[in-house]
Amino acid sequence: MTETARPGVESSPWSPRETELLAVTLQLLQEHGYDRLTVDAVAASARASKATVYRRWPSKAELVLAAFIEGCRQIAVHPQTGTLRGDLLQLGHAISRQTSEQAGTIRAVLVEISRHPALRDAMQHEFLDQRKALMQDILRDAVLRGEIDAAAIGDELWDLLPGYLIFRSIMPNRPLTERTVEALVDEVAIPSLTRHRKANG
Amino acid sequence: MTETARPGVESSPWSPRETELLAVTLQLLQEHGYDRLTVDAVAASARASKATVYRRWPSKAELVLAAFIEGCRQIAVHPQTGTLRGDLLQLGHAISRQTSEQAGTIRAVLVEISRHPALRDAMQHEFLDQRKALMQDILRDAVLRGEIDAAAIGDELWDLLPGYLIFRSIMPNRPLTERTVEALVDEVAIPSLTRHRKANG
Repeated sequence: MTETARPGVESSPWSPRETELLAVTLQLLQEHGYDRLTVDAVAASARASKATVYRRWPSKAELVLAAFIEGCRQIAVHPQTGTLRGDLLQLGHAISRQTSEQAGTIRAVLVEISRHPALRDAMQHEFLDQRKALMQDILRDAVLRGEIDAAAIGDELWDLLPGYLIFRSIMPNRPLTERTVEALVDEVAIPSLTRHRKANG
Repeated sequence: MTETARPGVESSPWSPRETELLAVTLQLLQEHGYDRLTVDAVAASARASKATVYRRWPSKAELVLAAFIEGCRQIAVHPQTGTLRGDLLQLGHAISRQTSEQAGTIRAVLVEISRHPALRDAMQHEFLDQRKALMQDILRDAVLRGEIDAAAIGDELWDLLPGYLIFRSIMPNRPLTERTVEALVDEVAIPSLTRHRKANG
């Protein structure tokens, strides 16, 4: 078995200054929401020229998507707790915190993405592909430890856990709690991933 | 055991004329999307006066939410196939068709709802409460048939199946297929709902 780079811990595609601009964007999004965010406010808060921001991200939608993806990238580290349950809980709690804080941004990004194919491609290549690789990596480790069968790793529902947590974060009156993540792991993900096991053993 | 009304088949809260206006709204949403929809266009298409439409739904957001809820209400009939798997598949396929057709509307509604508490309450009382009752009804039938244990019916994840399907419909590059619904039922919902069973028996 060859050692491959862990998804999620690859180095950032941004310079330190760009990373700082994206962090400011995410902070302002959390404080004021997508509608009231302006590129000018981001530049002012970060003490950057507007030209610097616009050169990298020609539109507000591109800036916000980049900030959201960068925020997610930083938390998407392979948990390595030593058990499938531990890994899924740690990942689930991290996603849960992130999506709850950024619910307004996620709603806005979903609308903007549906309007702009270029944003859709960025989302696919800079975000979803990495998320999928991370999830597959967690599951492959569980196969190697003998916790689940390789047959349990499918392509159709790989994003069930993050997808449902995102759904909950953007729905009204359904706040995410730690209990949500625990139920999702213990009552859904583990029974689903071990279904071959139980049938055979 | 007393016979209670089946959720989802309750009579419409709207007059035939209002139902017609909502159907026209849904049709125009599907054709042109939320942004390009106007209340004037709905009135013109339905040969109604603008005053008639505005009297019932004072804003575009209220009109669109009502149209979306009415569209969902019509498909949310208790399947009664005789098996849990059959019921979940039928419900899943119905939700899948509806959400795929109305993905743009769902995105827009989620944004509007986050801005207007009154819309959030309408969504809760005219939509989510009924959906939850329908799902609980399907699961109670499965308990009565001896397919699952009552302990499998929880409050935390009752909307996992519709929630994930909605997530898939509003995400780019993850189109829903019949296979998605089958995998969700056979590889996730049924293993989750029968997890007590397998542990005991």
